[in-house]
Amino acid sequence: MTNPIVDPVLARIDADMDGAVDRLLDLLRIPSISTDPAYKAECDRAADWLVSDLQSLGFEASKRATPGHPMVVGHMDGDGPHVLFYGHYDVQPVDPLGLWDRDPFDPALEDTANGRVIRGRGSSDDKGQLMTFVEACRAWKAVHGALPCRITIFFEGEEESGSPSLVPFMQDNAKELTADIALICDTGLFGDKTPTIITQLRGLLGEELTIKGPSKDLHSGMYGGAAMNPIRVLSRVLASLHDHTGRITIPGFYDGVPELPGQVKGQWDALGFDAANFLGEVGLSEPAGEQDRTALEMIWSRPTCEINGIWGGYTGDGFKTVLPAEAHAKISFRLVGDQDPDAIRANFRKMVEDMLPPDCEASWEGHGNSAASQMSIDHPAFEAARAALSQEWPQPAAYVGCGGSIPIAGHFREVLGMDAMLIGFGKDDDQIHSPNEKYDLSSFHKGTRSWARVLAEVSQL
Amino acid sequence: MTNPIVDPVLARIDADMDGAVDRLLDLLRIPSISTDPAYKAECDRAADWLVSDLQSLGFEASKRATPGHPMVVGHMDGDGPHVLFYGHYDVQPVDPLGLWDRDPFDPALEDTANGRVIRGRGSSDDKGQLMTFVEACRAWKAVHGALPCRITIFFEGEEESGSPSLVPFMQDNAKELTADIALICDTGLFGDKTPTIITQLRGLLGEELTIKGPSKDLHSGMYGGAAMNPIRVLSRVLASLHDHTGRITIPGFYDGVPELPGQVKGQWDALGFDAANFLGEVGLSEPAGEQDRTALEMIWSRPTCEINGIWGGYTGDGFKTVLPAEAHAKISFRLVGDQDPDAIRANFRKMVEDMLPPDCEASWEGHGNSAASQMSIDHPAFEAARAALSQEWPQPAAYVGCGGSIPIAGHFREVLGMDAMLIGFGKDDDQIHSPNEKYDLSSFHKGTRSWARVLAEVSQL
Repeated sequence: MTNPIVDPVLARIDADMDGAVDRLLDLLRIPSISTDPAYKAECDRAADWLVSDLQSLGFEASKRATPGHPMVVGHMDGDGPHVLFYGHYDVQPVDPLGLWDRDPFDPALEDTANGRVIRGRGSSDDKGQLMTFVEACRAWKAVHGALPCRITIFFEGEEESGSPSLVPFMQDNAKELTADIALICDTGLFGDKTPTIITQLRGLLGEELTIKGPSKDLHSGMYGGAAMNPIRVLSRVLASLHDHTGRITIPGFYDGVPELPGQVKGQWDALGFDAANFLGEVGLSEPAGEQDRTALEMIWSRPTCEINGIWGGYTGDGFKTVLPAEAHAKISFRLVGDQDPDAIRANFRKMVEDMLPPDCEASWEGHGNSAASQMSIDHPAFEAARAALSQEWPQPAAYVGCGGSIPIAGHFREVLGMDAMLIGFGKDDDQIHSPNEKYDLSSFHKGTRSWARVLAEVSQL
Repeated sequence: MTNPIVDPVLARIDADMDGAVDRLLDLLRIPSISTDPAYKAECDRAADWLVSDLQSLGFEASKRATPGHPMVVGHMDGDGPHVLFYGHYDVQPVDPLGLWDRDPFDPALEDTANGRVIRGRGSSDDKGQLMTFVEACRAWKAVHGALPCRITIFFEGEEESGSPSLVPFMQDNAKELTADIALICDTGLFGDKTPTIITQLRGLLGEELTIKGPSKDLHSGMYGGAAMNPIRVLSRVLASLHDHTGRITIPGFYDGVPELPGQVKGQWDALGFDAANFLGEVGLSEPAGEQDRTALEMIWSRPTCEINGIWGGYTGDGFKTVLPAEAHAKISFRLVGDQDPDAIRANFRKMVEDMLPPDCEASWEGHGNSAASQMSIDHPAFEAARAALSQEWPQPAAYVGCGGSIPIAGHFREVLGMDAMLIGFGKDDDQIHSPNEKYDLSSFHKGTRSWARVLAEVSQL
């Protein structure tokens, strides 16, 4: 079925792929790690790069200061509805660096058994994804001299570090940022062939716990046995967070956790999720969560408690018989339904503090909190996008859940009263947050084409 | 009571203190950290320094290669019995470096509220202590032109890293190293005023445990809930090692743990150990070991299980929602009586492996093992030394236990059939194995004088 409006845009995208890849590689070379203060200037540089690129294709774009890393905002007028597009230019840290096969910030195209990939930190999460939209706009502009919708671009640089500046910035710039619908590109396909629109997202609560015991590091020969060891206390605390059935033991933790509606469960069952394969690809064979739940529920609709990091005492080569003064852990919770992050934080802290033996004390650093999001799919853009995506991909588009936490969707609703559609082209094996992150060239290419089609459909609303 | 033989030696020691301190500072400047391969050349340099110093005072001394760090052996003839003196020239790592008030390898004399101290890594453990004996020999030689006993010096450079070369070296050089009695200077005073001869020492068993789960680091948004987290498994393992009464739960762990004989317990009670003060000095108030034991038992005569280090996942600034592929811990056991290190290692490993959930596996690295030591005090040198020490210090010398592990004493008995006396001048607040290690100038001075007196008494046997 030919379409005289979108077909030449798709052709232009196909013809310009080499240029699009070169631009993405340029952006990937900037090590914009937002969580590590050492990379502050690099985050700034990535924002500058994006402002310049948006300006080059006709956006009125600027870098906007925040107390943290800057936002990038761009506007271009158009005839259709007003669409806001969101992505993030910051990336995850790269350790353990020794497990990368190449410098994470020296990206390159690589041929693999599964096709060509763009290898490098941020290629999938989220620089490659946000550039699919930019490249779709570039092609529209080149072919038609204008965009099919009025478009606002909104990029942040703190997504991987809890987005501390996001809500204040949205509040301060509410008028400028409010559109008819928000488009968010920070998610994946279901399998390799099924484009998806996320309709529920888990929330995230992060806590850093330090347990202090003796006033200084001690010699375990002199004090061992008589002095409380904070690593032992920390282990006991962490071991108590799950019971033997995999349930989380924090009082009130399951308040607000809904059962999956039968209709949604039916849709999910129809996806034919292959849990054995999903786990098998990362060397696992058994779902490790609550014993009475399916693996898909565990990752999409059930809350979790994970230990993301732990350290204390001597961790170098060889052995040191030290009895350390402190032990530390980074712990996070994925939240669902109406779970209240503040209440869970308070209950967690109280539970830990109640467990501490004499001579130990806990100190805390909170690392952001966001409740889960549930999309409303009443907005006609959802069905328009579903139709557009179904034209591009081998399988029709599906509404699915997502285990990750993309609080931006909730913020668009709560702060700006705007619905959001999460559409992305990542794959399960992209190794985001891990060494050797990649983005399939086909994700980048078909993702760009997908946005051209979505814009075409949405422009008709 | 004047003594024409030893008094001029003591006077010479007093007169030469500045020179003795300068020599010790020289030795302390060499960062001979044995456990870290990066410091191999520095261990070699410390051995060279000692060989040179021993030669300068008339010892026939040489550096002797081993598969690890070298031994230093020196001989000087004399009229009395044959005495072997042991110390170690290697030192503990210095991290966390940020907690040191000065460069740990730029030692200096400092005035403190408790008198002058020699500050620097190794000042107390064990370079300062071994130099007390060398300085006593230097003074004897200077005053009398000869030593009062035939003396063999034996310094090793692997004491802080499990002494892997020690027993093979003793076996290969048994004839050369066998004397009438061994003197070991690597322990402390009881309190500030009571010189001690250690008659029982705990053994040490070290294990490094790695638990592997997924084949790579995962994103906790994508896999959290469904994938087993190795930190969670490690926490559960470590939390299970003690029961709620503080007893260690490894099967068979207490096999061979003796009850303290009433006579020994009586001697210990007479020492007036102040547990509240001992713990209070390091910010603690309650003994953390087995609930039915005194603090002195916990540190001298009861076995322990300590976690000396733990690490896994993201441990840098900020937050990373990683679900790590591996988690690690360094665990050590202090052993007493007839506890069998090999059996405990096997039982520990089996217990951990039996606890592992599906998809997790454990791997191990053993870090040396030594059984506990019990001295025989029948050798007349014990009473001779006790008399000599009682002349030098405000309180008479005592026979005590020691929570640390100095396996050399057991090796002298088992390999060379030789009794050993452990006499040292460290203090509880020396911060050995910790930042800001120091050795009191009075320990160094009176320690040197103590050895002169011990040699005088032992030479009469």
